[in-house]
Formats: sequence, structure tokens, C-alpha cells
Amino acid sequence: MSTTTTPALDPSVLRARLERAGTAAAKADLDALLVSPGSDLRYLLGVGGESFERLSCLVLPAAGSTAAPALLLPKLEEPGYAGVPTGELGVEVVTWVDGEDPYQLVAELLRGAAGRPARLAVADVMPALHALRLRDTLPDTHQVLAGPVLRDLRMRKDTAEIEALRRAGAAIDRVHARVGEWLRPGRTEAEVGADIAAAIVAEGHTSAEFVIVGSGPNGASPHHDLSDRVVQAGDVVVVDIGGPVPEGYNSDCTRTYVVGEPGHPDVAETYAVLQRAQAAAVAAVRPGATAESIDVAARSVIAEAGFGEFFVHRTGHGIGLDVHEEPYIVGGNDLVLEAGMAFSVEPGIYLPGRWGARIEDIVVVTEDGAETVNNRPRELVSVPA
Amino acid sequence: MSTTTTPALDPSVLRARLERAGTAAAKADLDALLVSPGSDLRYLLGVGGESFERLSCLVLPAAGSTAAPALLLPKLEEPGYAGVPTGELGVEVVTWVDGEDPYQLVAELLRGAAGRPARLAVADVMPALHALRLRDTLPDTHQVLAGPVLRDLRMRKDTAEIEALRRAGAAIDRVHARVGEWLRPGRTEAEVGADIAAAIVAEGHTSAEFVIVGSGPNGASPHHDLSDRVVQAGDVVVVDIGGPVPEGYNSDCTRTYVVGEPGHPDVAETYAVLQRAQAAAVAAVRPGATAESIDVAARSVIAEAGFGEFFVHRTGHGIGLDVHEEPYIVGGNDLVLEAGMAFSVEPGIYLPGRWGARIEDIVVVTEDGAETVNNRPRELVSVPA
Repeated sequence: MSTTTTPALDPSVLRARLERAGTAAAKADLDALLVSPGSDLRYLLGVGGESFERLSCLVLPAAGSTAAPALLLPKLEEPGYAGVPTGELGVEVVTWVDGEDPYQLVAELLRGAAGRPARLAVADVMPALHALRLRDTLPDTHQVLAGPVLRDLRMRKDTAEIEALRRAGAAIDRVHARVGEWLRPGRTEAEVGADIAAAIVAEGHTSAEFVIVGSGPNGASPHHDLSDRVVQAGDVVVVDIGGPVPEGYNSDCTRTYVVGEPGHPDVAETYAVLQRAQAAAVAAVRPGATAESIDVAARSVIAEAGFGEFFVHRTGHGIGLDVHEEPYIVGGNDLVLEAGMAFSVEPGIYLPGRWGARIEDIVVVTEDGAETVNNRPRELVSVPA
Repeated sequence: MSTTTTPALDPSVLRARLERAGTAAAKADLDALLVSPGSDLRYLLGVGGESFERLSCLVLPAAGSTAAPALLLPKLEEPGYAGVPTGELGVEVVTWVDGEDPYQLVAELLRGAAGRPARLAVADVMPALHALRLRDTLPDTHQVLAGPVLRDLRMRKDTAEIEALRRAGAAIDRVHARVGEWLRPGRTEAEVGADIAAAIVAEGHTSAEFVIVGSGPNGASPHHDLSDRVVQAGDVVVVDIGGPVPEGYNSDCTRTYVVGEPGHPDVAETYAVLQRAQAAAVAAVRPGATAESIDVAARSVIAEAGFGEFFVHRTGHGIGLDVHEEPYIVGGNDLVLEAGMAFSVEPGIYLPGRWGARIEDIVVVTEDGAETVNNRPRELVSVPA
């Protein structure tokens, strides 16, 4: 049911990406990249495809190979790739039918590309079903992950990608602006979530990829999504929502609401700590800073206020064609930020059994700092009880 | 957003499945099964979880091991598994937080289970991201697929599973009974599909997993889903729809419609061939027959009528917690059918650029034949032009 065709992506953009990927593969001493359906494939071909038990994959030889890229597809899934400008991209389409061995076909394509391939990168999302069968077909070939090669491309967004993230950010901001219409005492999280999901689509997303409405104690579970809990006066409510716009790029924005007056005396003071932490982390974003340093910027504010143990996740994740992608804003990640990288800054404080809060914006690293693509007020948002 | 908790599944059922899986693992000379989020996990624990970049997996030692099963989870995803009766199942929950190395934790759990594991089975759906990192953490351990072990369990449905498939079949039959309300000339496939999707949910599914409306020439692409093509008088229209009921078991049923009088003179005669082929295949289903023989039963009727080259896919696929699972009804599969196996019987004839047709029922192998869980008329269904 999902539409995975990127609208109006110029073949020259895709051709440049394929070339960069081939060059990066050669630099990583790989013979080829095998890219399964998913966001990596969409990045390279404009169409993400869908992953089934039948093998589909792009066989992309490293730069310097005499072989051309090939798109291996089950014959009956070929129509789903009709939007790929294979001719302009110089990608040969090779189809197979039930009864044929697609892994053998990959081996033959690779023999053309690399003699006898020594090192092959498979997409991070390739199911073990395919990766292990490929391993058995090519027992002398060492498999590594394609993620590290492709993330270097995907995490440096071009102007069009940043523009899509801005559109996604503005769309989800419009939904947050309307949350007060639906978040009321007496309604369940699921009812509120259904209205939000409809609005996510109405405001320009192709689907509501995720809708978290964590009310009261549920707000203290960072990955809680929806339940039949009835929203009550005094509840603090975490609303974390997003989805892709037609270009495939995702929104992801969290605001925390309160229904009438907070039911706990510590809400205002604790929330103020969170707000300072989130602002400090956004302020720390600039080219040259490490991913880890952004995490530290948020975490140290929260820890100094005595809430360190209640901030139980990393500060953020990259975003683009995937909701979660590189760069991860987490302790230990010494990746140096560059202009064009995009990620979430989303510290939270979770008080088990009581309440929780999170503030999340998507930011894009600019030449001298950060642009936030989400711009709704970051204060605790009061809705009528 | 998806609800992956099986309602009211007795812990004793899950315990028996875990034991059978452990026994099957030992028989396959495996030290343990590593089961990632997905249908295998749902089958074993009642909760399917969701697959993210953070490793979640059930570590299930083979029977005879002194170690207990463990469910390794990122701390912040633990709430999603609250429905698992871990205590009654004897499954230890081990959580990890960002910054820890979950692959090392798996290695430690396995050392407890198997000394130094020699052979480890990973779920077919485990992303290469995790499978390759596990390989690097356990370089002396040979990975194989868990699918062959688990499919032996999952493809033999128990009474409750068959009952869920019946409910799913009846629900999708009710949707097909109403297709005439929406399929009209002048409407796009996408518009018709949106109405069908809403009805799939209204009739008792938790989601509309797939909606194919292939009108006119689009019906000749077996995996076409929806487009903006406007349905016209004379169109033959393939409608292939389904989704899970709350227990997680899927429906999948295809009927072919015609809008007014067929626009091609060969429709009635060709469709009659297809109908005979589908009936012959269903009639061939009984314990002791091979999966391949069911494919042959359908294919030979179509081939003898001269349409062999236009039946471009296998005759069917198993169905249960996955829409596509074992047993596959395909040439070369000598699997012997047993009572309790469930699969689709769905031959099609696709005339490129003109029209196509498919008839699909889900059947369950009984002690002496087959029960079809879909029971709408199999004739070409005429809707008003």
C-alpha cells in the first residue's frame, strides 16, 4: 500500500549518487554493494521497493569495475520498479522467476564485476534469509555491512533533501498546533492518536508513521505508543509524532502537553530543566562539534539538576529517508558534524509511574550553527481540562 | 502503530511452542535460536515486537542446555513486551542501554547456554546489521537460518490457529461481498482501494495489509497494487485483498470482477480455464500430496489450454502470522502436505497490455482433503457498468 516513488527526482541526481556509492565502495576495498529494498535503495534509485521472501537487489560494482550496475528482481515485482530511470542510469535489469536460484544469478553478476569477489557489502536491512544464502553461494567472499559506506553519503543532505525535511517539519508543526483540538480529558490515548494520525496525513504526509500519546504515567515510558488509558485532568502528556512527506523524508517532533493544571507539584521545575537541556544541546550544534558533544550538552544539564538517571536514552538520531539513521547523537560517537547533517535533539525526563516529558526538534547543521525545522513553542503546552 | 499482542493466548500454548522449538533446535544440531522481532517471535512469545536499529532478540537455547531462554531488549523498548508472560514461560528478561554492546551480551548469554556455541540459528528476518555484528562478535560460531527449524512448527497450525484463519477468511469474504458498492466506472483504482481498505478494517481486521485493484491492463501485472487509472466499462478487474485479524493471522483472497460486459472477446473462455485450474488445484489438496503437485494440478490445466506462458508465478504460499510463509506451493517443492497446513491456491492468467485474472482461496489441509476458508463464488463477478 505504501507509495515509495520519490516524486520528480532528476536522474542526474541519482546518477551522481550511484557514482559516489561506487567510489566509496572502491575506497572501502569492496568489490560491490548489494542493496536490498529499503531506504538505501530509494536513495540510490528513487524507488525503495518492498522486501519479500523473493530476493530483489541492486548489484552495484565498485568504481573501476568493468561491469555495469544491475537490478536483480523477481519478474513479477518488476512493475513496482517502473519509476526507475534504468536506461539513463546505466542500470541493467535482470529478472528471475520462481524455480530459478537468484543467489546464483548474483554470483554470476559479481563474477562479471569482480572476477571472484573477495569483499561484498550487503545492505544493513538485508534479511538474514538472503545474506546467509548469498554467503553459502559465495563461500570465499567475506560479507560486510554496506551501512558504513552508504551512511557517509546519506547523512550529508543536499539542498533538495534539506528542503524536504523543512517541508516535513512545517507539516508536523501544523499538526502540533492543532493537538489542543483533540487532547481532552475523558478521551483515550488511542482516540486522540487516531485524530492526530488523520491530521498527519491531512497536513501533507503520506502516512502517519508513528503516533505516541503518552499520558500520565505512560509518558514515563519513552517508547509507549498508544493505549486505552483515558486522559485525565492534570495529566502531563508526551506527543511524539511524524511520518514521511511524498519525497520520502520524515518528520519527527515531540511536544509535551498538560491538561489543565499539572497533577504533580514538581512538573514546572523539572520541565524547566528539560527545556534548558534541549536548548543547550541545540545551541551546541555546529560544524566541527562531535555527535557525542551534543549528547553531553543535554545530559549534563539534566544530570546537574539531579535527573541523570531519568534520561534513559540517547539525545537524538539522524533523520531522512529513515526516521532513525546516522548520525546517532549518543555517548561514544566521535563523528564530527558537518553542514547538511540532520538529526533530532530530544532529551527527556521520565519519572517511572508518575509522568514524563520530552522535547524534540529536528535540526540541520548549517555553515555556522543549526537550523531547526520544527518551530512550535517549546514550553509545556497547556490544553483546557 | 501496529498492535502486535496476540489476544488471550494461553501461556501453556507458548510454553509448549518454546519447548518444541528448543527440541527442534537440538535435533538440528544447533546450540541456540536467536529470534528477532517478527512473526517467529510472536509465534513463540505472543508478542512480535518491532525491529529497530537496536538489537532485540529471544535467545532460545536448544533442549538439553542448562541455560534458560532470555529475552534481550533495549531498556526503552521493554514496555512493548509487557504482554509476554515471561515468568510463566521461564524467560529471563535482559535489558541493555545505549552505550552497551548488545552483541557481547548475546555472546555471554550463549556462553552460559552452550559453552562456546558452534552453530547458531538466526531468524530469517534478522537484518544483516545484527547478523553480521553477531558473526564478528562470535567469529568461531557458524550461523544458519532459523527458518527451517521454525517453519516446521509454524506451518502445522493448531485448532486455535485454524479458527483464526477461518475468522480472517470470513471477514475478507464479507469485504468481497461488498466490492460492487465501490467498483464503478469513473472511479480510480486508488479511490476504490481506499473504500476497500476501510471495509477491511470495518469487517474485523486490524489493518488493511494489502489492497490490489488491478483494472484493465493493470490486472496483467500480478503485483500491481493501486494507481490513478480510472476504471472503465468493460474492464476486467483483479481485487486481491487481506490483512490480519486481532490474533495476528491473515486473510488473503482474490476475486476477479468485470464492469458490465467484458471489453475483450476472449474473457469468458479464458476465465473458464482459470476457474478449472483453481478448482483442480484445490481438489488435489490432501495429506500426502506434495506442495509441488498442487502447483502442477493448476499449471497443467492452464498449460494444456495454451496459456502456460501467461501464468507467471507459483500457485500459492503458506499463510498464518505472515501473509507469505511456508509451505510454498511451487515447482520443485517436494514437501509432503499434512493436516493443519494452510496456504493459498491462486493461479492467474496475465495477458500483458490487455487484462488479467486470478482466483485465490486460502485452504487448510484436513484429514482427508481441504477446507477452503474463503467461500465467495469463484465465477467472474459482474458489477454494473
